[in-house]
This record gives sequence, C-alpha cells and structure tokens, in this order.
Amino acid sequence: MDDDCIIILSGGLDSTVLAYHVLDKGLRPLLLTFDYGQKHTKEIAMAKQTAEVLNLRHLVIRLPLNEIFKYSSLLKGGSDIPEGRYTKESQRSTVVPNRNMILLAVAAGVAEDRGISKLYYGAHSNDRAIYPDCRPEFIDAVSEATKKGTYNNVEIIAPFKECTKAEVVKEGVRLDVPFKNTWSCYKGEKTPCGKCGTCVERKEAFKLAGAKDPGD
Amino acid sequence: MDDDCIIILSGGLDSTVLAYHVLDKGLRPLLLTFDYGQKHTKEIAMAKQTAEVLNLRHLVIRLPLNEIFKYSSLLKGGSDIPEGRYTKESQRSTVVPNRNMILLAVAAGVAEDRGISKLYYGAHSNDRAIYPDCRPEFIDAVSEATKKGTYNNVEIIAPFKECTKAEVVKEGVRLDVPFKNTWSCYKGEKTPCGKCGTCVERKEAFKLAGAKDPGD
Repeated sequence: MDDDCIIILSGGLDSTVLAYHVLDKGLRPLLLTFDYGQKHTKEIAMAKQTAEVLNLRHLVIRLPLNEIFKYSSLLKGGSDIPEGRYTKESQRSTVVPNRNMILLAVAAGVAEDRGISKLYYGAHSNDRAIYPDCRPEFIDAVSEATKKGTYNNVEIIAPFKECTKAEVVKEGVRLDVPFKNTWSCYKGEKTPCGKCGTCVERKEAFKLAGAKDPGD
Repeated sequence: MDDDCIIILSGGLDSTVLAYHVLDKGLRPLLLTFDYGQKHTKEIAMAKQTAEVLNLRHLVIRLPLNEIFKYSSLLKGGSDIPEGRYTKESQRSTVVPNRNMILLAVAAGVAEDRGISKLYYGAHSNDRAIYPDCRPEFIDAVSEATKKGTYNNVEIIAPFKECTKAEVVKEGVRLDVPFKNTWSCYKGEKTPCGKCGTCVERKEAFKLAGAKDPGD
C-alpha cells in the first residue's frame, strides 16, 4: 500500500503522539527519523521501536549536522547540556541553527521523491517562546516554501501547533500511546537525567495532564 | 574582518558571477560550497579556485544527498545525464528533489551560527520554467521562512532572479569574471561534454550575450 503522508518521528514524546494521532485519522504514514549528530541517539532507537509496534515503513536518514555546526550543546562535540528549567539562555545553547527548516526541507525532498504531498511534524506551543522554528508564522512560511518549491506542492502540517505539551500528553493518553517507547532527555545516557530542560518540561506536562509517565 | 553575507557558490557560472557582483557592491562575503553527492565535483574545485582568486573565506560543506535520493541523474549512483537541449522531461531527471531549499536551509543555519543575516544565491529566470525552486514566488517564500525561523532573521536574496542567463553572462563580462574558472557540465568528465542541457544552455547564453566562452 502506498504511503499517504510523511511524519518526522524523532522518537520523542510529541512526534510519537503525532504518529498515533495521524494513524487515528485513518492515514498511512511513512515515518522519517533523522540521525543528525544529536547526542541523544536513544531517541532513534525509540523511533525504530514505534515503527515496529505500529508496523509502518520507516526511513532513518543520516545528516551529519554536527560536522557543520560545532557550537550546539545538542550535538556530538558540542558543550554540555544545561540543567534546570528552560531559561531563554540555557535553551539557546541547545539550538541547532535552523534545524527544523533543514529537516523539513530534506523531508519535503523525500516526499517529492515519492509522490507524497503531506508532511507532518510535532511542533507545539510550549517550544514557541524560545525556538523560532516552532512558531505558527514559521510553520506557515515554510509550508508555503515547500508548496512553491516542489512539483508536488508538498504541504507541511503541524496539528499540535496550538497545543501545550500537556495537551499533547492528554492526546497520547486518549490514544493509548505507550509512553515508555518515547525519549525526551537531551543527554545521551542510559536513563533520563531528570534535570535538563526537556526532562523538567516532560515531568510538568505529565503533571498538568494528570497522567503518569511510565519512566518516572 | 567579519563577513557581511554568505554566498552559495557552486562553482558554476551563475554563482561565480554572483560572487563578483556582490563584491562589486562593496560587501565581504563568506563563500559556501556544497559537496552534496553531485557527479560534477569539478565545480567544487572551480569554487575553490574562485575563493582563492578573490581571497575570500570559503567553507565546503559535505551533505550526502546521494545517500538520501537515489533517482536523480545529477547524483552519484543515479541514471545517466540526458543529452540535448533541455526539455521538460530530460531536465526533470536532473532534479534533486527540493535541492535548493535544502541547501538554503543549511546555509541559513550557517548564517545564524555566525551572526550573518544576508544569504545570496544565483537563481536566474532561465531555470524557472522547469525548476520550481528557482521561481520568484519560491524565493520570496523561502526567504520568509528563514526570516521567521531564525533569531537572526536571515534573508535570502537572489539578485539575478529576473535576469536571463545571457544577462548573467553580460554582468560577468562587465566585471571581468574569469569564466575559465567556472564549470557548468553536469557530467563529471575532464572537459565539458557540450551536449547535456546545461552545456547547451551555456553556449546559447554566451552567444546571446555576444561574448566568448574561454572553454569553447
């Protein structure tokens, strides 16, 4: 069966809930995961697991961004991941410059290559304050660019763009997402550190959603 | 001295003339060349030569798109480069899906990384009929996306977007561009084949401009 759409699946919580959400809408997605030089390669293993559980086709694309950008703490060879609740400054060090646009542009290329015209990604409103490439005005502009730049008029869709992370967790609960198969921590260690910005944010989202994180 | 802007320099005619054009405006560009798995790596050697002649900083970025897209005749491992004047069909096989957006997104990341907010590329109006990612509406949309998606509001500028290739040649003549340091042929051989779409187009552009190509 042909794929109806592409989902960028990092293996994190948001994109995993997104995969279940899109399946729930009756679509058959092709899953795309980027091995872009991130320290937390554990998320890639989680993405593979989700693809297996959902029995969906899955491509892992190697894109050595860590050879290009040296300064992001998120990338191999970069500085240490900061701890504590996100502040503008601490989160800034985790920015991979223009990352979402790069991944979306490559994913749109894959869509074009395969005659697919819908591309989903898991941006939500919590990230908006600090990451400009999670803001609705960016999502609209980048979608316009892929529509105009491809024969196939590839459209970018971010169904959670107006949701908080807690609302994404709630949607995951509704859809019985096995949260144990998702990885958030930016450090590449055996268990989540519980201290980095994304660990703190995940904990708060579960609390706000009144749900239990199996990893806790 | 800091760089004022970035130019994507493929080593082809258009982007080389663009480098001279931007220098002529008094800017000091950082040159960026992509080693993206193209067969015609000779253009990369040409880009290096231009950077040396102009005494500008130059980054060559490896981005193995040929591992991602298997079907483009432009990429290593793809089918043969078609010969003869561009037709819609023959040129289609040379398309690397969404290539310009991918390269522009990475280049915008490099700009963001270095506090640069202007990014130039050499799209011109000849390419427009077939390559959607050379059209003005794409250029506007992708510039809007990089502006919105980066802290630095990176803007994409294509000064030749309304020019024909012959007009680009004329601008090169005006600026004394050493055309021998540019490479157009899509085949990766020792000398230009003279038969592929881009060779035919180059020949016509020189003829229309009333200029002589040193390679001819």
